[in-house]
Amino acid sequence: MFLKFLPKDFDFFSLFEKQAEYAVEAASYLKEVVSDGVLDEVRLKKMHDIEHQGDEVAHTIIAQLNKTFITPFEREDIHALTKQLDDVIDMIYTIANRLRVYKITRVNKDLIEFAAVIEASVRCIASAVKGMRNAKDRKPVSESCIEINRLENVGDLMRDKALAELFETEKDPMIVIKWKDIYQDAETVLDICEDVANVVESILVKHA
Amino acid sequence: MFLKFLPKDFDFFSLFEKQAEYAVEAASYLKEVVSDGVLDEVRLKKMHDIEHQGDEVAHTIIAQLNKTFITPFEREDIHALTKQLDDVIDMIYTIANRLRVYKITRVNKDLIEFAAVIEASVRCIASAVKGMRNAKDRKPVSESCIEINRLENVGDLMRDKALAELFETEKDPMIVIKWKDIYQDAETVLDICEDVANVVESILVKHA
Amino acid sequence: MFLKFLPKDFDFFSLFEKQAEYAVEAASYLKEVVSDGVLDEVRLKKMHDIEHQGDEVAHTIIAQLNKTFITPFEREDIHALTKQLDDVIDMIYTIANRLRVYKITRVNKDLIEFAAVIEASVRCIASAVKGMRNAKDRKPVSESCIEINRLENVGDLMRDKALAELFETEKDPMIVIKWKDIYQDAETVLDICEDVANVVESILVKHA
Repeated sequence: MFLKFLPKDFDFFSLFEKQAEYAVEAASYLKEVVSDGVLDEVRLKKMHDIEHQGDEVAHTIIAQLNKTFITPFEREDIHALTKQLDDVIDMIYTIANRLRVYKITRVNKDLIEFAAVIEASVRCIASAVKGMRNAKDRKPVSESCIEINRLENVGDLMRDKALAELFETEKDPMIVIKWKDIYQDAETVLDICEDVANVVESILVKHA
Repeated sequence: MFLKFLPKDFDFFSLFEKQAEYAVEAASYLKEVVSDGVLDEVRLKKMHDIEHQGDEVAHTIIAQLNKTFITPFEREDIHALTKQLDDVIDMIYTIANRLRVYKITRVNKDLIEFAAVIEASVRCIASAVKGMRNAKDRKPVSESCIEINRLENVGDLMRDKALAELFETEKDPMIVIKWKDIYQDAETVLDICEDVANVVESILVKHA
Repeated sequence: MFLKFLPKDFDFFSLFEKQAEYAVEAASYLKEVVSDGVLDEVRLKKMHDIEHQGDEVAHTIIAQLNKTFITPFEREDIHALTKQLDDVIDMIYTIANRLRVYKITRVNKDLIEFAAVIEASVRCIASAVKGMRNAKDRKPVSESCIEINRLENVGDLMRDKALAELFETEKDPMIVIKWKDIYQDAETVLDICEDVANVVESILVKHA
C-alpha cells in the first residue's frame, strides 16, 4: 500500500519512449517491406512481433497507471497517449497484414511514398514524446507536433490523388477494392499520429 | 495566473454557438452543392474554408479549456462537445471531398434527400446548443435532441433503402463502390449529430 | 436532493447483468439466423427488439449515473462499460440488418463459425460482468477476460482466412463487396467484446 504512493521505480516517460520506439521500428520496417514488395510469412511474423512488443509496453503502462497514485500528468492523458501510440502500431501492422491477405506483391509507388510519410510522422512522435521530459523547453515538442499535423494534411492529399487515379485507370474492381482499403489504412495511420500530437500538446499546455 | 481563476472574458456558450453555426453553414452548402450537382474546385475550396473556420473555433475552445480553471460544465463534456461538433463539420466536408475525388457529377435524388435530413439535424444541434444557455427551461433543448434522434433513425432507413436499391439495380461495381461510401458517409453525419445530442442531454441532466 | 446521496434502490450490477443478457440473446439469435439462412422481416424485427431492449437498459444506466452521487466504481468506467455493451449489441444487429439489406440468403460456413465465436465471447462477457459483484474472488472474471482476448485473436485469423478465400475464389465483385463488409462486421463484434474485457479488468485492478 505504501508503495502505491511512492512509485519511485516507475517512469512513465521511459515507457512512452519505449512504446514510441516500437512505433518507429514498425514504420521503418513497413517502408522496407513495401519498397521491395516482398511480404512473406517471415516478414509478417517480424511485424507481428514488433506489434506484440509495443502491446506489452502499453499493458505495462495501463497496469502501472491503475496502481499508481501520483502521476506526472493527468491519468486520462496517460491513458489516451498509450492507447493512441498502440493504435499507431496496430494500424501499421494492419497494412502489412492486409497486403498479405490481399496477396499484393506488386511494388506500388504511392504506397512507398505513403510509407515514407508515415515513418517521418512516427519519428516526429518519438521526438515529441522524448521532449515531454523537458517541461521547460516546449519548443522542440511543439515543432514536432506542427510537423505531424502538416504530414497528416499531406497524407489526405496523397490518398485523394491515389484514389482518384485508381478509379480512373484501374479496370478491375477487385484491385480497386483492395487498394482503396490500403490507401485508406495508410491515411488512417497519419490521422492517429495527429491524435497523438493533440494529446501531447494538450499535456504540455496543462503543465505550462 | 490570477486570470486563470477569473476568465470573465471567456464565454464557452458563444464559442459553441459559433462552432454550431459553421456546422449549419457546411450542411446548408452541402445541400446546395448536391442539389445542382456541380462540385468544382471553387466550391470544394469554399467547403474547405468553412471546415477550417470551424476548426479554428474548436482549437480556441480546447486552448481556453486547458487554461481555464472554472468552467460552466464538466471539462470532459466541453471536450466531447467541441470534438463532436468538429466531427460533424469534418464529415460533411468528407462527403463533398469524396464527390470530387470520385468524380461524381450526376445529381442523385437519395443524396439530395440525405443532405436535407443532415441540414435539418444540424439546425437542431444549433438550437440545442443555443438553448443550453438557459438552464431553467430545458424543454426546447430536449425537443431538439429528440428530433436529432428521430432524424438519425430516418437516416438509417434511407441508407438501407439506398444501398438495397444500389445493389439491385446497378450493374457497374465501380459505381456501387463509390455510392456505398457516400451513403455511408451521409448516415455517419447523422450518427455524429446524435452523439452531440447525447452530450448536450447529459450536460443538462447533470445541471438539473 | 437527499435521494441523490442515498441511491439505495439503484443497483448498477443488476443493470449491467441485464444489458449483458440482451447481448447474449442477440448473439445466440444471430447464430440461429445465420445457421438456417432465413432472415425475413419477422426475424429482423425480433433482432431489432432485442437491440431496443438493450438500448433501454443503457439509457437507464446513463440516466441513473447522471443522478447518482455515489457509484460502486468510477463514473467514467460505468459510462465506458455500458457504452461498449451497447456497441456489442448494435454491431450484432448491424450484421443481421446487413444480411437483409444485401439480400443474402445463402448459408455461409464461415459466418456460422463467426456467429459461434461471437456467441462464445458474449457469454464470457456475461460471466465477467456477473463476476464483478464478487470483488474478493477475481479469478473467474480474469479467466473470462483472457478467453475473450483469445477469441478476438481467433476472429482476426478467421476474417483473414475468409477474406483471402473470398478474393481468390469469388469472381463477382458485387459478392466480394458484400461479404467483405459482413466478415469485417463479425470481426468488429469481437473487437468490441475485447474492449468490454479491458474495461472490466481495469475496474477490477482499481478495486484490488
